[in-house]
Amino acid sequence: MTENGKLEIGIVGGTGYTGVELLRILAQHPKAFVKVITSRSETGLYVWELFANLREAYPDLQYSEPDVEKLKRCDVVFFATPHGVAMKLAPELVENGVKIIDLAADFRINDLRVWENFYGMPHAAPELMEEVVYGLPELNRERIRTARIIANPGCYPTAVQLGFWPLLKHRLVDVDHLVADAKSGVSGAGRGAKVGSLAAETSESFKAYGIHGHRHLPEIEQQLNHMAQTHVNLTFVPHLVPMIRGIEATLYGKLTRSISEDELQHIFEETYAEEPFVDVMPRGSLPDTRMVKGSNMCRMAVYRPQGRDTVVVTCVIDNLVKGASGQAVQNMNLMFDLDETLGLEAPALLP
Amino acid sequence: MTENGKLEIGIVGGTGYTGVELLRILAQHPKAFVKVITSRSETGLYVWELFANLREAYPDLQYSEPDVEKLKRCDVVFFATPHGVAMKLAPELVENGVKIIDLAADFRINDLRVWENFYGMPHAAPELMEEVVYGLPELNRERIRTARIIANPGCYPTAVQLGFWPLLKHRLVDVDHLVADAKSGVSGAGRGAKVGSLAAETSESFKAYGIHGHRHLPEIEQQLNHMAQTHVNLTFVPHLVPMIRGIEATLYGKLTRSISEDELQHIFEETYAEEPFVDVMPRGSLPDTRMVKGSNMCRMAVYRPQGRDTVVVTCVIDNLVKGASGQAVQNMNLMFDLDETLGLEAPALLP
Amino acid sequence: MTENGKLEIGIVGGTGYTGVELLRILAQHPKAFVKVITSRSETGLYVWELFANLREAYPDLQYSEPDVEKLKRCDVVFFATPHGVAMKLAPELVENGVKIIDLAADFRINDLRVWENFYGMPHAAPELMEEVVYGLPELNRERIRTARIIANPGCYPTAVQLGFWPLLKHRLVDVDHLVADAKSGVSGAGRGAKVGSLAAETSESFKAYGIHGHRHLPEIEQQLNHMAQTHVNLTFVPHLVPMIRGIEATLYGKLTRSISEDELQHIFEETYAEEPFVDVMPRGSLPDTRMVKGSNMCRMAVYRPQGRDTVVVTCVIDNLVKGASGQAVQNMNLMFDLDETLGLEAPALLP
Amino acid sequence: MTENGKLEIGIVGGTGYTGVELLRILAQHPKAFVKVITSRSETGLYVWELFANLREAYPDLQYSEPDVEKLKRCDVVFFATPHGVAMKLAPELVENGVKIIDLAADFRINDLRVWENFYGMPHAAPELMEEVVYGLPELNRERIRTARIIANPGCYPTAVQLGFWPLLKHRLVDVDHLVADAKSGVSGAGRGAKVGSLAAETSESFKAYGIHGHRHLPEIEQQLNHMAQTHVNLTFVPHLVPMIRGIEATLYGKLTRSISEDELQHIFEETYAEEPFVDVMPRGSLPDTRMVKGSNMCRMAVYRPQGRDTVVVTCVIDNLVKGASGQAVQNMNLMFDLDETLGLEAPALLP
Repeated sequence: MTENGKLEIGIVGGTGYTGVELLRILAQHPKAFVKVITSRSETGLYVWELFANLREAYPDLQYSEPDVEKLKRCDVVFFATPHGVAMKLAPELVENGVKIIDLAADFRINDLRVWENFYGMPHAAPELMEEVVYGLPELNRERIRTARIIANPGCYPTAVQLGFWPLLKHRLVDVDHLVADAKSGVSGAGRGAKVGSLAAETSESFKAYGIHGHRHLPEIEQQLNHMAQTHVNLTFVPHLVPMIRGIEATLYGKLTRSISEDELQHIFEETYAEEPFVDVMPRGSLPDTRMVKGSNMCRMAVYRPQGRDTVVVTCVIDNLVKGASGQAVQNMNLMFDLDETLGLEAPALLP
Repeated sequence: MTENGKLEIGIVGGTGYTGVELLRILAQHPKAFVKVITSRSETGLYVWELFANLREAYPDLQYSEPDVEKLKRCDVVFFATPHGVAMKLAPELVENGVKIIDLAADFRINDLRVWENFYGMPHAAPELMEEVVYGLPELNRERIRTARIIANPGCYPTAVQLGFWPLLKHRLVDVDHLVADAKSGVSGAGRGAKVGSLAAETSESFKAYGIHGHRHLPEIEQQLNHMAQTHVNLTFVPHLVPMIRGIEATLYGKLTRSISEDELQHIFEETYAEEPFVDVMPRGSLPDTRMVKGSNMCRMAVYRPQGRDTVVVTCVIDNLVKGASGQAVQNMNLMFDLDETLGLEAPALLP
Repeated sequence: MTENGKLEIGIVGGTGYTGVELLRILAQHPKAFVKVITSRSETGLYVWELFANLREAYPDLQYSEPDVEKLKRCDVVFFATPHGVAMKLAPELVENGVKIIDLAADFRINDLRVWENFYGMPHAAPELMEEVVYGLPELNRERIRTARIIANPGCYPTAVQLGFWPLLKHRLVDVDHLVADAKSGVSGAGRGAKVGSLAAETSESFKAYGIHGHRHLPEIEQQLNHMAQTHVNLTFVPHLVPMIRGIEATLYGKLTRSISEDELQHIFEETYAEEPFVDVMPRGSLPDTRMVKGSNMCRMAVYRPQGRDTVVVTCVIDNLVKGASGQAVQNMNLMFDLDETLGLEAPALLP
Repeated sequence: MTENGKLEIGIVGGTGYTGVELLRILAQHPKAFVKVITSRSETGLYVWELFANLREAYPDLQYSEPDVEKLKRCDVVFFATPHGVAMKLAPELVENGVKIIDLAADFRINDLRVWENFYGMPHAAPELMEEVVYGLPELNRERIRTARIIANPGCYPTAVQLGFWPLLKHRLVDVDHLVADAKSGVSGAGRGAKVGSLAAETSESFKAYGIHGHRHLPEIEQQLNHMAQTHVNLTFVPHLVPMIRGIEATLYGKLTRSISEDELQHIFEETYAEEPFVDVMPRGSLPDTRMVKGSNMCRMAVYRPQGRDTVVVTCVIDNLVKGASGQAVQNMNLMFDLDETLGLEAPALLP
């Protein structure tokens, strides 16, 4: 804590899009003070040299070499790193009373064999897994409040889980044939220099990718299994949209019983009635991703087209906010007993 | 026919995107001569005053008032009009030996009660419906050759049909639970001045729309019924992509029997082996819409993710070419016994 | 004033992009309460029905018929209307002690013959012109504090003035040959349904427009004349960029004396040293419009290429924020003796 | 020559955007046969594995190791390589009667000290410079017909030269104060994996760059000097536009004498009256880059705003066509005495 009662915050690996987004959000957070931000490759650079939008908010903040001693003096450390970094530093930090929020995948998968298979490395902190809390407040709010380590959900998983939750909770869909047709803006691919992410390669085009098995699939299935309290079969097809921010997930399920759109609407509204960041839109409306651009809101709508036995949910988030850094701050607020919406009230930027 | 053996062509309503696209394609067609183009609102204007890309190809072509006498002297008349225009002029033209290719929906739906219900007007030429041929060459090539009236397929219906056809032909999927999650660029909404089509409203955003019943749904279901030779149930959700051209359809079906991806690939390749404008991509690859931008190709791939019982097809076309004007020219080529690919050989524009 | 000390605010004509942007900014302003928003065409609609990003911030705010009696009870009224509306309502409001901030052009041009010629209508409130203050705080801060009527500057004029000001102030450029090559995103054209503003017409394209005389030219020249205290000749060419937000102005002047880039940099930095919303970037860097997206900052850089006698300034703003609604709120803060940056501190949204 | 009279063509380095564009254009060229295409990094790959738009046009073409023996058997070799490659292979090829068209900068700058200074390497073939012809057909058509080595112009230089040529030819502008404010789509930065070219970095943003000295500046100045037959001073500021293709150059000059817009229009029209690929648009119109997307046309308009002494030209090309590969094919046509427009007649893709 600073003298004026602000949380002292460390960010490990803040040169990517979730890093700059964390800084942007924390700049508006009255209880946040970013004390240290690390980057091996950019040590010495001011953050505004990479991200000039932050010139006024962080005139003096520089990237430094990762240094556990410095991080230990923080109240909370966010990992906005590639996979495999957080699990190495977490044990020592946790032991020293620092709370951890990992925006990467190190702590998301309970079954470490699955994790190790997918990420191709041994897990460095299996002993911590038991106490990890999956940071989706709509599901795990109370456990988040007392957690020491948060596995912040992936972007696709956030949208897919929030959309399916009311249906699974009420056992309304056949769990053997769930379909999630998801679409993401290009920032989801990160700030790495790859030909496939060039503007001239992705603009004015749309495609499916990763059909054979996206790295988010195990996370989503683990969570849907948990929600359904049984084994689900999900077909998950991600797509790339020529826009910077935003995820839309169109979810399809076969209804297990006849239910009117009015009832569906009621169930969705009731499920999320108390949620500050989930908006079930009025019947007949549909969400655009721009309705949440830059904001921590998730908006969704539910339909039963032509009155047949398929239910359709469309659900949008900003992949960098509710799908990453905004949700991380929401978790931080819960962990430190702050108002859950602190720093996250700004409306989406539209147009 | 002109003296040098070119088809004399009329275009009714050439001020929209399918109109300019027809002109662009016909400009490269060695057997085409655009004799007349009509537009009530733009009479007197040179086409290049609206579409400056056509300055060199059509230096002298002007929009004129629709005039049946002039149209009667054409070999073929394309209708690139709103719905409801072609059906009024078609009878007199057909009677005078003029072939008709309607890019709108007037002749697409066999069940006129359905048509009238959807389009909110009585049909003006029910007596012609029997001889209309639905202009999807991959399905109806021989009938198209001798047709007098072609109902040129809609853009979404083209993509969805071509993707589902191998599966339905071989009865590989449960027809009660088909899902088509389709995405279109903004040119699909036409050149009308609507707030919802403004750049500031659609750029940097993605959304589902028309879930309750898109006007293309009856056309798609009619055709899938025909393919499956039974009644199918399709859930069709269109989406708007912030790009100008292109449609991608991701299709989901529950397999009726276990079948390997190799076999699926083989069935798809065999189905389209002789098709000049359908490309089944090699196993492991996936189509982008930019791979067909400005071209008449349809590219697709088939997958069985995680070896489960859901088959996924992703299929791309350019909505203005294979989804409209290119397919119309392909139909014209067939109707006049020309090489089917004439004027349609140009590769897609990439990047 | 509300009981808890907030300004009671009226917005006339809040259905366009400057309207929604005002609402977005005011939602984060601790001293603002939007009491009434009017729209003839949308009376009865909730603002979130048009702009779903505002669902949480304004759950109950509805458009109402313009009603002077209601507006009179506000502390300040913003006009986010087409030209010609503010001048009709202003006299009665001002008389009743309501402060006026007009985001349209009604009060921007001192020479009413020029105004009437450009806008094609007689001016309805010539008697008010004398007390109007042109709301560019960097030039007129003290006069703004006590003004009753603010003419909020246009978007292009804001960028061009801020970029030229240090040069004109120090008489560094030949005022007979100024060039402003300016570029704007598509939101600058407004939310009206026009073919020329469709996504399919403006995406993936770039063009100059309005060379013969853009409606912002008289405003810019009046202000540059004022800055230079002599008559200037400006060639102003606006261009349309396929993006939603942002203006970049590249300014060219012939130097009147030899001056190093270091000196130029120093003069620019000194001119804006105390300005909260003007950032003279460090030597060698260049601003992108995305560095100010959604924020009230203006960023600029100054160069003397190849050491020749032409000076180049590049200057970026968000056309809807510093170029319209953000600047309007900055003016409001000054007029009501609030911290000038209140509600305007959020960093730009990047990426 | 092939047996059926086609030119045998080699392409060195065809994995970038000018390479794929050459292949696209040559696919439609009736006298072209691409015999060999080389790429060290992609040897063995089919070109359609990189560029799926070419699957039908080049089903069997594979990248091969650069091999001078194979290239020697071509009629013409295009270099679509980074700078520094063509100059090394050119001597041996030319000696063997192969014509060379270099799309990079190796042969563009006559003053090799300038070249070596800019490109940071010694020039490998100074002995060839004397016979090199700068491949701008509008200036050098007759010399191109008999050339053995063509330096294909850069994209910015093409647009700037064509726009200034009528003014310089008629000595209408003060050559000491020329300004070229140029804007390019992102494909101009090439297909290299760079953070600055990512979609998430360049979309929805606009910026000036390279003010201190773009690598195209020496080429432009050399050519303008040549046109003006005296030394010119040009201020050249390039900008990056969030679109894939297209260059727009807005050119400013101070008139040396009073001249009406009618006269200016006449001079421009007369200058380019016989040019198949330069379109002086009618008075009062303005070019968009989309009017030339995918085509070899250059379109321009000339204005004298407010009747003052500054003349403004706006000029658009497709940077990959008239600015690179299309112009290269135009040069090839001239060198082999073919119709200059062969393979280049397709209208621009609009929308």
